[in-house]
Amino acid sequence: MSAFVSWSGGKDCMYAMHRFLLQSELPVSHLVNMCDETGLKSGSHGLDSALIKAQAEQLNVELVQKPTSKSQYRANFIETISKLKNEGVTTGIFGDIYLEAHREWIEEVCTEIGVTPVFPLWGMDTSELPDLFVADGYKSMVVAVRKEKLGEEWLGRIIDEKFVEDIKSLTEIDPCAEQGEYHTFVLDGPLFNKAVEYNINEKWEDECHLYLELKAITA
Amino acid sequence: MSAFVSWSGGKDCMYAMHRFLLQSELPVSHLVNMCDETGLKSGSHGLDSALIKAQAEQLNVELVQKPTSKSQYRANFIETISKLKNEGVTTGIFGDIYLEAHREWIEEVCTEIGVTPVFPLWGMDTSELPDLFVADGYKSMVVAVRKEKLGEEWLGRIIDEKFVEDIKSLTEIDPCAEQGEYHTFVLDGPLFNKAVEYNINEKWEDECHLYLELKAITA
Repeated sequence: MSAFVSWSGGKDCMYAMHRFLLQSELPVSHLVNMCDETGLKSGSHGLDSALIKAQAEQLNVELVQKPTSKSQYRANFIETISKLKNEGVTTGIFGDIYLEAHREWIEEVCTEIGVTPVFPLWGMDTSELPDLFVADGYKSMVVAVRKEKLGEEWLGRIIDEKFVEDIKSLTEIDPCAEQGEYHTFVLDGPLFNKAVEYNINEKWEDECHLYLELKAITA
Repeated sequence: MSAFVSWSGGKDCMYAMHRFLLQSELPVSHLVNMCDETGLKSGSHGLDSALIKAQAEQLNVELVQKPTSKSQYRANFIETISKLKNEGVTTGIFGDIYLEAHREWIEEVCTEIGVTPVFPLWGMDTSELPDLFVADGYKSMVVAVRKEKLGEEWLGRIIDEKFVEDIKSLTEIDPCAEQGEYHTFVLDGPLFNKAVEYNINEKWEDECHLYLELKAITA
């Protein structure tokens, strides 16, 4: 028996995995990453899929990347997790903190598949979580911001003590970005063999978001 | 000389076009609709592209649908509008109401292309706009909701006086949904030859949104 992590590449799924391993005997066998239809970009973060591969490699966990359209998201998620269930994966780890509607969706879908969802960060104080994440030795970078919430100066920042202080000084911003204020990419931490290597490419934007394009350096 | 409308299929771009035509002598020659990479779904609403075609037909306006990935959104938008500019389109109409970051992006891109952006709804009171939209004879349907904001019972509702009353009774919801609380599809109104015909297909969802799938009825 083992568990999978619902994996975006960002700090919350990383920290959910970290805390799960502290509290459970079950090993983490898979990261499950839903991509866009081209399979090149990971979900809402617009991350290079090769970067996610590099994370899985440094974490020594098997990666499952599943391309999907929005309208087939549920069906593709169920198909992917059902396959893992047949291989003995009994539990799913999710980084959600307080959004009830997300949790309900996950619980419903997991019940349908017959795996147990676990939410190691659920109910934690979002103004304390970033401190814990930093104190526990994780390093991640802001790779996307919602323009109506945060300016360009936040893009590319590392989540460190100064970042945590700065983000907490803002009103109407969840320090953990549970409302989508920013997205991160985890570069390093205690569960990594070594840090993920990357190049910083260009910045790009659409109407709602600014993005920083990172490229994986592959051996 | 003519104008294009930045077209999502929803109430705000429709009403921006309506108000522009009241205040300007310039005709509207094109609707510009950015789609996902498959060209089958329109942007964040996940709308069937054929539905957007049906709207353009009933509005007697030429439709330009441009498939794009997120990372190429800006480049594809610029390419599309630049072509129109060469055909004499001098002005762009946008349905934004108060999100400064969106407006800045549009102004910057339009300046680069050399077309004039116009925001006929800018600064209007979002608790009055839905009343005006209904009073002016437009009819639209809620085709997507953000689950953390609105429940399933809002999906498929027609924007009418009762809807406006109900949505205004909620706190933390922009009645116009400028924060992405819901998305609409315009079915009919004074600028339409006749109402767009559609079938209601199934509901589907991802972690964040509930969607109602409409299908165009084509002759």
